[in-house]
Amino acid sequence: MSDRLWNANTKKLIPYVPGEQPRTKCIKLNTNENPYPPSPNVKDLLSDFKYDSLRLYPDPTSSNLKEGLAEYYGVEKDEIFIGNGSDEVLAFAFQAFFDKEMPVAFPDITYSFYPVYANLYSIPTEIIPLDENFNMPLKAIKVFKGGVVLANPNAPTGMAEPLSAIIDLLKSNPDRLVIIDEAYIDFGGETATGLVRNYENLLVVQTVSKSRSLAGLRVGYAFGNPSLIKALECIRDSFNSYTIDTLAQKVALVAIKDGTWFEQTRAKIIKTREWFIAALSELGFTTLPSKANFIFTKPSKSCASELYELLKEKGILIRYFRKPRIDSYLRISIGTDEEMEQLLIAFEEILNQN
Amino acid sequence: MSDRLWNANTKKLIPYVPGEQPRTKCIKLNTNENPYPPSPNVKDLLSDFKYDSLRLYPDPTSSNLKEGLAEYYGVEKDEIFIGNGSDEVLAFAFQAFFDKEMPVAFPDITYSFYPVYANLYSIPTEIIPLDENFNMPLKAIKVFKGGVVLANPNAPTGMAEPLSAIIDLLKSNPDRLVIIDEAYIDFGGETATGLVRNYENLLVVQTVSKSRSLAGLRVGYAFGNPSLIKALECIRDSFNSYTIDTLAQKVALVAIKDGTWFEQTRAKIIKTREWFIAALSELGFTTLPSKANFIFTKPSKSCASELYELLKEKGILIRYFRKPRIDSYLRISIGTDEEMEQLLIAFEEILNQN
Repeated sequence: MSDRLWNANTKKLIPYVPGEQPRTKCIKLNTNENPYPPSPNVKDLLSDFKYDSLRLYPDPTSSNLKEGLAEYYGVEKDEIFIGNGSDEVLAFAFQAFFDKEMPVAFPDITYSFYPVYANLYSIPTEIIPLDENFNMPLKAIKVFKGGVVLANPNAPTGMAEPLSAIIDLLKSNPDRLVIIDEAYIDFGGETATGLVRNYENLLVVQTVSKSRSLAGLRVGYAFGNPSLIKALECIRDSFNSYTIDTLAQKVALVAIKDGTWFEQTRAKIIKTREWFIAALSELGFTTLPSKANFIFTKPSKSCASELYELLKEKGILIRYFRKPRIDSYLRISIGTDEEMEQLLIAFEEILNQN
Repeated sequence: MSDRLWNANTKKLIPYVPGEQPRTKCIKLNTNENPYPPSPNVKDLLSDFKYDSLRLYPDPTSSNLKEGLAEYYGVEKDEIFIGNGSDEVLAFAFQAFFDKEMPVAFPDITYSFYPVYANLYSIPTEIIPLDENFNMPLKAIKVFKGGVVLANPNAPTGMAEPLSAIIDLLKSNPDRLVIIDEAYIDFGGETATGLVRNYENLLVVQTVSKSRSLAGLRVGYAFGNPSLIKALECIRDSFNSYTIDTLAQKVALVAIKDGTWFEQTRAKIIKTREWFIAALSELGFTTLPSKANFIFTKPSKSCASELYELLKEKGILIRYFRKPRIDSYLRISIGTDEEMEQLLIAFEEILNQN
């Protein structure tokens, strides 16, 4: 295959590689999906949906969805940007705010899409290592002269920073943008959403993929000062005026409005996570403190990559990263109680055989 | 509102402005939407949809939809790229193939998103004027040393180039990419899809928005040599791994598979277009020959912008472009027979009052 018609930038890209999406039946604990279905109201919405409305373009402003988000999160509509998944929101943010004059810093161990965006838009990066306990290197980040993107809770560690640390970072330099990627915030972290009114250098990014069980829908959003939102809109409207389809706008709104379902399912996941970490500990695993819907854990004696492979043979898919510093760890999404029990049984079988 | 945190590129953007999407009831003939609903099978799909599957990420490769497209269009799966609307496909193509070394040419009068993409990605452009009859300036395009993007049929003129002209252009320089934007191809033009096997410098872009009545769904696709498709995938996977949600993949597939509905509705639109052009002619309008689901027409005496405003007052929305060369024209989407009859009555009323 010849790449002679690719431009120079395309030739140097190293795309992001998401976790496997197997088409065969398995216990799937590898991409941090929610084990529970989305709000049952989604079912009613789809069965009653006026399908002929799809002949018309969607509302380009996602106005109704914005209203729902504004009400739920206590922000104004002009403080909200909606994208085709939080990945699109993050991509637009990198493109809108960072460049050679404003490079971006992020930790060595974090969401691996950040360096991919930087490469796509030719943005210089400053990779600042997490400390030896995987804590955020906030001191080093604060002295960096440029933008920052932090996942809070971080991935794949699951560890969260308190709000006070975020405020400290925001105050350290009002002229740099701080993006807080809160994809996993609803499982125990402290959201920075309430800060956007006071800190015009803060952009908070969230998604319906995890805590609203809608990874298949592709809806993410950012909260920030209207000036930041306007910049994201400028990028979007120079790229694709209609990024959120009519169905996605309506389904996401129904999910946001069903607070009861949201509270019930996230509470279940947190409960499962806590007993599962305790049970893993009895098997000799060391698990980082998690505020996410996944855990990052290190087997005491066995080899992590081998465990990953053996589980896969048993039809259980988790995530293993063959990367420096974390190649002795496994990332495990929190499924239902039954799924986690089956995983524990599988771990026991494997460990007993060794 | 301060733009102090915007980067230099964002500050210079001039976003695309789509046609109005009014939220009030009107006869809407301004954004080339299909007046007929999508395939009735879409309704069944949505009522039977297993909503809990939305908790999982979509298939990142849109494999089933690709199979359906491959079968319908007689191409291979690796010759297909699917995007979040054809606007996203076009944006990725500009980003993947054009740059300072490979500038892009397009006509002065065409889809107004092309210069917006070029500006977003800092791609130099060569604007080549249509001739005095709005024909494609193919001679001038052929001698241009760079890439080309052509809408065929063109917008907002509705005029189409024959396949022989496209072949001629492809042969003129195998080292330049030619993008043929076929958003409106199904209403009478000759598609270049069959050429992608023989011309590795050809990318054909289509959409389900118009001829499949699914503007609200956001699914577009490109056909091209596997090397071109691979480049688009590199861009996408450096931007957003999951651009097409689960519902969109399934709904688009159902629409593509329903060839009968597609043939019936596009035939109706073509028939309506032809009698409507004839009726307009009797009112003194001069209409360009259209192969699209819209027409571009010039009133004999009245002022086009005034007609646009007066129609709006009567609850009929069409499109007027306040731009050099075309500011005496009106673009009118082809609606149902009833809608076009109401428009004719409104025109008559207005013309009789003057």
